Amino acid sequence: MVRPLRFEDGALLVLDQRRLPAEERWLRCERPEQVADAIRTLAVRGAPAIGLAAAYGLALADDFEPAAELLRATRPTAVNLAWAIARAREAHERAGRRGALELAGSLEADQERADRRLAALGAERFAAGDRALTHCNTGPLATGGYGTAGGVLRAAWERGRLEHVWVGETRPLLQGARLTAWELGREGIPYRLVTDSSAGALMERGLVDRVVVGADRIARNGDVANKVGTYPIAVLADRHDVPFYVAAPRSTLDPDTATGGTIPIEERDPVEVAAGAAPKGAGAFNPAFDVTPAALVGAIFTEAGVLEPPYEQSIARALGG
Amino acid sequence: MVRPLRFEDGALLVLDQRRLPAEERWLRCERPEQVADAIRTLAVRGAPAIGLAAAYGLALADDFEPAAELLRATRPTAVNLAWAIARAREAHERAGRRGALELAGSLEADQERADRRLAALGAERFAAGDRALTHCNTGPLATGGYGTAGGVLRAAWERGRLEHVWVGETRPLLQGARLTAWELGREGIPYRLVTDSSAGALMERGLVDRVVVGADRIARNGDVANKVGTYPIAVLADRHDVPFYVAAPRSTLDPDTATGGTIPIEERDPVEVAAGAAPKGAGAFNPAFDVTPAALVGAIFTEAGVLEPPYEQSIARALGG
Repeated sequence: MVRPLRFEDGALLVLDQRRLPAEERWLRCERPEQVADAIRTLAVRGAPAIGLAAAYGLALADDFEPAAELLRATRPTAVNLAWAIARAREAHERAGRRGALELAGSLEADQERADRRLAALGAERFAAGDRALTHCNTGPLATGGYGTAGGVLRAAWERGRLEHVWVGETRPLLQGARLTAWELGREGIPYRLVTDSSAGALMERGLVDRVVVGADRIARNGDVANKVGTYPIAVLADRHDVPFYVAAPRSTLDPDTATGGTIPIEERDPVEVAAGAAPKGAGAFNPAFDVTPAALVGAIFTEAGVLEPPYEQSIARALGG
Repeated sequence: MVRPLRFEDGALLVLDQRRLPAEERWLRCERPEQVADAIRTLAVRGAPAIGLAAAYGLALADDFEPAAELLRATRPTAVNLAWAIARAREAHERAGRRGALELAGSLEADQERADRRLAALGAERFAAGDRALTHCNTGPLATGGYGTAGGVLRAAWERGRLEHVWVGETRPLLQGARLTAWELGREGIPYRLVTDSSAGALMERGLVDRVVVGADRIARNGDVANKVGTYPIAVLADRHDVPFYVAAPRSTLDPDTATGGTIPIEERDPVEVAAGAAPKGAGAFNPAFDVTPAALVGAIFTEAGVLEPPYEQSIARALGG
């Protein structure tokens, strides 16, 4: 299983996901600023993985609060980032940099356990012969563990409950075509790429049995912010009676966000959309995430169990509220 | 207004749309086989434009029927292709190659008149301040005339009934980002590119007032085959109460197709999806079109009038049935 983060000799090594699958290059980060850059530029991405990276980054900080603020400000949508920073702060207050480093290591181990647990729970919803559609990347690269939606797919495959995966390429940065395809290929799980806009064509032909995606933030009512393009898939799945699942660790549940309408949605550089093919000077709008309303979410797989509607109650229980 | 086809000195000149917007290069076709290649490889594309190109191609044929069969087989979905070939056959039977050439010229003039008429009708449905979403390319490049959905947008703009256009980039071949952006830029119509999967994000923010797209074939019941990704947009528009319009000349209405379920959908080379970013050897599924059910289509703008539900009746009337 690929590990996107390694802490060695007083530095965080980050597998540069921008270069995958062509090249496996590691960035060496010796200061929190370098970790923040790696997060901002998507050398490391995926909601749980950027939380882990930030925690490791804080183990490199001489001055905790400025580093925490720098790391927190890198990306606004994934709540796992703020959550991991808050955990690191407590550890740092107790035991300084050593405490922060131990915390990061334990978050990483927790993440893998959580991933494996939610993956096993999710796989139970799959059946032999299933053709599953997924979006973006949610495997080990995205979590630093076993993967969320990607973990569910792997667990389903290992249990003989998956025929193949439809991988949405995930424009503009092609995390599906680059990263998910790479992970599935390494794991020997059959897949075929599709353009993001082919989800409708697949479903109208009856070629999708289940959808499973990750999440960057889940509101208390079950609204899910995830990679842009998730919401259209959920709407299509609803129309075609295809179960639509979200897989995410408990740290993705945001007790401070009541509904999806208040989740901050990162808008990234238009050049990610317009560069290359478009006429010079073409403008673009590039929201990185969209919000899938809870009513379209069939179940949320977490390490605390499978959450089902009504989500206000099941999420409150999972949060220990 | 750009003209993608020119017949000069006994040859058809085809503006190579694969090279746009970077380069304006013309292919010189002296034989029907070269025209067939230009259609198959998308040097010329767009349902009405490939019909016109085929008609011109037949004016180059020494032996009509083999050339007709070759041209007809280039792309299966757009019914305009078969329609134009049937018209060329009649002309050729009457007056040989000269008849076929005259027919092609008159089809081109008819197309522009039809486009202008349907564009004017469509623009009446727009209102000042409208932000319209479109998909793929449906301007002059796609029709050889004024454009279908692209013509509607231009007519709405000229009448002060359009604020700006959201242009879906249209993976895998980026006809939106390359061609529609190029056309709108030349015409001075404000636009912004979005990834195809951003349609949901736009609509959930209330940023789309209308959708207008073209069509490759419309069944007698009003089901619409169009560029893959159209159907997801229609489903989203329905959910968000955004009017969803189709603009197409009457030649796109197929009297021989009862419903969308029997429209042949072209599957193109997987390499169009997988090339470049994906791991070597990655497989892909690449349907070029999807089918939007009539129930999601608010109106169809044609030169014979605005068709509205129930489409069985309005389409039969437009076909003169």
